[in-house]
Amino acid sequence: MAAEQDPEARAAARPLLTDLYQATMALGYWRAGRARDAAEFELFFRRCPFGGAFALAAGLRDCVRFLRAFRLRDADVQFLASVLPPDTDPAFFEHLRALDCSEVTVRALPEGSLAFPGVPLLQVSGPLLVVQLLETPLLCLVSYASLVATNAARLRLIAGPEKRLLEMGLRRAQGPDGGLTASTYSYLGGFDSSSNVLAGQLRGVPVAGTLAHSFVTSFSGSEVPPDPGLLDTYSVWRSGLPNFLAVALALGELGYRAVGVRLDSGDLLQQAQEIRKVFRAAAAQFQVPWLESVLIVVSNNIDEEALARLAQEGSEVNVIGIGTSVVTCPQQPSLGGVYKLVAVGGQPRMKLTEDPEKQTLPGSKAAFRLLGSDGSPLMDMLQLAEEPVPQAGQELRVWPPGAQEPCTVRPAQVEPLLRLCLQQGQLCEPLPSLAESRALAQLSLSRLSPEHRRLRSPAQYQVVLSERLQALVNSLCAGQSP
Amino acid sequence: MAAEQDPEARAAARPLLTDLYQATMALGYWRAGRARDAAEFELFFRRCPFGGAFALAAGLRDCVRFLRAFRLRDADVQFLASVLPPDTDPAFFEHLRALDCSEVTVRALPEGSLAFPGVPLLQVSGPLLVVQLLETPLLCLVSYASLVATNAARLRLIAGPEKRLLEMGLRRAQGPDGGLTASTYSYLGGFDSSSNVLAGQLRGVPVAGTLAHSFVTSFSGSEVPPDPGLLDTYSVWRSGLPNFLAVALALGELGYRAVGVRLDSGDLLQQAQEIRKVFRAAAAQFQVPWLESVLIVVSNNIDEEALARLAQEGSEVNVIGIGTSVVTCPQQPSLGGVYKLVAVGGQPRMKLTEDPEKQTLPGSKAAFRLLGSDGSPLMDMLQLAEEPVPQAGQELRVWPPGAQEPCTVRPAQVEPLLRLCLQQGQLCEPLPSLAESRALAQLSLSRLSPEHRRLRSPAQYQVVLSERLQALVNSLCAGQSP
Repeated sequence: MAAEQDPEARAAARPLLTDLYQATMALGYWRAGRARDAAEFELFFRRCPFGGAFALAAGLRDCVRFLRAFRLRDADVQFLASVLPPDTDPAFFEHLRALDCSEVTVRALPEGSLAFPGVPLLQVSGPLLVVQLLETPLLCLVSYASLVATNAARLRLIAGPEKRLLEMGLRRAQGPDGGLTASTYSYLGGFDSSSNVLAGQLRGVPVAGTLAHSFVTSFSGSEVPPDPGLLDTYSVWRSGLPNFLAVALALGELGYRAVGVRLDSGDLLQQAQEIRKVFRAAAAQFQVPWLESVLIVVSNNIDEEALARLAQEGSEVNVIGIGTSVVTCPQQPSLGGVYKLVAVGGQPRMKLTEDPEKQTLPGSKAAFRLLGSDGSPLMDMLQLAEEPVPQAGQELRVWPPGAQEPCTVRPAQVEPLLRLCLQQGQLCEPLPSLAESRALAQLSLSRLSPEHRRLRSPAQYQVVLSERLQALVNSLCAGQSP
Repeated sequence: MAAEQDPEARAAARPLLTDLYQATMALGYWRAGRARDAAEFELFFRRCPFGGAFALAAGLRDCVRFLRAFRLRDADVQFLASVLPPDTDPAFFEHLRALDCSEVTVRALPEGSLAFPGVPLLQVSGPLLVVQLLETPLLCLVSYASLVATNAARLRLIAGPEKRLLEMGLRRAQGPDGGLTASTYSYLGGFDSSSNVLAGQLRGVPVAGTLAHSFVTSFSGSEVPPDPGLLDTYSVWRSGLPNFLAVALALGELGYRAVGVRLDSGDLLQQAQEIRKVFRAAAAQFQVPWLESVLIVVSNNIDEEALARLAQEGSEVNVIGIGTSVVTCPQQPSLGGVYKLVAVGGQPRMKLTEDPEKQTLPGSKAAFRLLGSDGSPLMDMLQLAEEPVPQAGQELRVWPPGAQEPCTVRPAQVEPLLRLCLQQGQLCEPLPSLAESRALAQLSLSRLSPEHRRLRSPAQYQVVLSERLQALVNSLCAGQSP
């Protein structure tokens, strides 16, 4: 599929959606004659969000769309010329005009994979100038997508497999695209549906919804809303529920079945339990068995704690609508993804700084997941790209972060983590559908051991280095300047 | 300016960027023969964000762009048909195909105005079906814009007028549009510039930037970066600062002046103080006075607390780059804006619920700011639209929220708050430029009394009701069903 046939390509992030310093650096590289030096960057995060021990990789489909459409238009180059120094050589702008991603190669963690600190979500290689320019947009596309997918996955783990989770946070998102991204990736992370119609139209997310208080208040006392559902606009017990039952029973005689009721205030769990009792009693009294199982939908600032209560055993709640707390990720509203140079001109590069948290791992690398005999991931291992692939059953000597000496591990299985996604600008294989990525996320989470999957105070999942990678780090640290 | 000549119109929010339940309700209204009932909604928030006592109104320009371009395309209507009940009357979809905002009238708080709880940021009136459909997109466009503008205003108040504030949070935003919105409205709220080039191109936000660690690490030991600036990639004192001075002095002899240095880790204030001392000493020793005042730029997870320290008296920091904490508003990542029906068919409507926080104020209203003799706002007053405009110097009896009896106030000045913005779909006056709205925000904040402007534990700013509006509320509450 060519970029111009992609209905979303026009909506892809634009090349100027970048920090000015990327253009300044591009100019610096160009002046130094280094624009076409072969470079490799890695995009990763340093800590798992929300105090958990895992994250989900997401945003790759948006990155691919962006990279395939990447091209500076004349107006873009003219704008850059207006903000760069006035004595800039016009040949630099000619260079920009001709830029695209036809020499860019990307390896990536498939969307929906488990991601851990320091393991690249993307490895981006190509001419130094262009891969530098990609930093900000790729971070923008991956970081929030991965954050919200991880947040959704946590909420799904709390809710358990049976409750239906509806994302309804569009009005709380950072503008239109924030809303579209949130709906897309909270579905990927484990939600069942979204209220966002555009996410349905553009991304195939199942859409669902109920109705608002304004719909109920628009009817005056003498009218009956034709499609009741929201019970608490005035009072659940004095008007909402009696009206609902009257209408549902009347319509039931005409062959219509009420789908559900929605509660948007008060003690949601307690009301749900009492309403279900009323439904059961009315179902028996009027001999309409379907009334027993009318869906009870709840919403109203539901966070992880409130969700745990609503999902407890015996809860009569069926559908849980979550807005703000899935979309804005209030526990941690940004992932802190970074995009770091690891090699240029075939030589490894490393950021050695007085702040050890901000050091990077040098060189072009491969990444593997080492699995135990029960199929659960034991640890991830990073090694240099040229090292032989580790074999299942083989004893490996590896370096945990900050360790004084190596430890050994004998994985029952070994999974390579990074897949070739774009080669010289060409898509290597069709991207999975959003639903397929969602299924991968649930499968991956189900294999994660309970101590790593735990949401509070989990055991940390280790990302270890091969002996050769550790030796390279040591030698660059010893030299103190690469 | 026609919508099709607006270069951003194609990027405007699309009509399907809405919650499914809006379409369900539209169908309900249409079935009940009420699609064209005259209706009025108010968009407001219930609590000021971040524990403060004020907010800034923002997002109006995006709403206007959206409303003027509002039109469901064939593909949109077809998608809606695919998610609404299969027996839906095709005439409903014909109705949708013909919809636009040519009968919609909007009054609004100008962008950059102070906004307080319960005072409408937007009053939207028109045919019930269409103004209901606008709920989600308008909330999406106003809530985050106002939140981030308010957040930026707080950071500006902490920084004081002298420090330059650079927004650099694109990579931490909720996708591309989240980033563009954040850059636009943090500028409106009081930042000086953004690193986001697209915000410069599309919105006229001043763009600024420095460079990244990767630029420094891309050069090996034998090369000298042509445009140094970032000091802490390896070590400030062992390599960053000595290299900077060597290059700055050498280039200085050729007539170039170094613009600044950037620190991105460690104790930023302490390093800035020490670096300034080195600059002063070197300026004296080498007789290059300009070196004394080279800009010191700092960044690295700067929040309100860290900013207060960097802005303290005697600080040698000149430019402060803030990303995550301005863009994601971690103290409170959503404003909680609501959009409530206040009148339909000329009759006031009110949401009377068991949760008093969620009650609404009925009727088509006017809003005024009552000012003291020093020009500082005393309180805002809501009254019914048909009441006479309050006069300066006149004693008014008003009802504070929850009060048992009215109080009196004699304002020295009275300002009407809501301006007619769109009348029957037509723009009534040109919107101010972004820079003009930014100036209004700073002016408005400067007039706010210190006890209301205080960021922690401020005095609450009162929004009071006129006697007639209070009487209407009382009568609707007494009836318990409008």
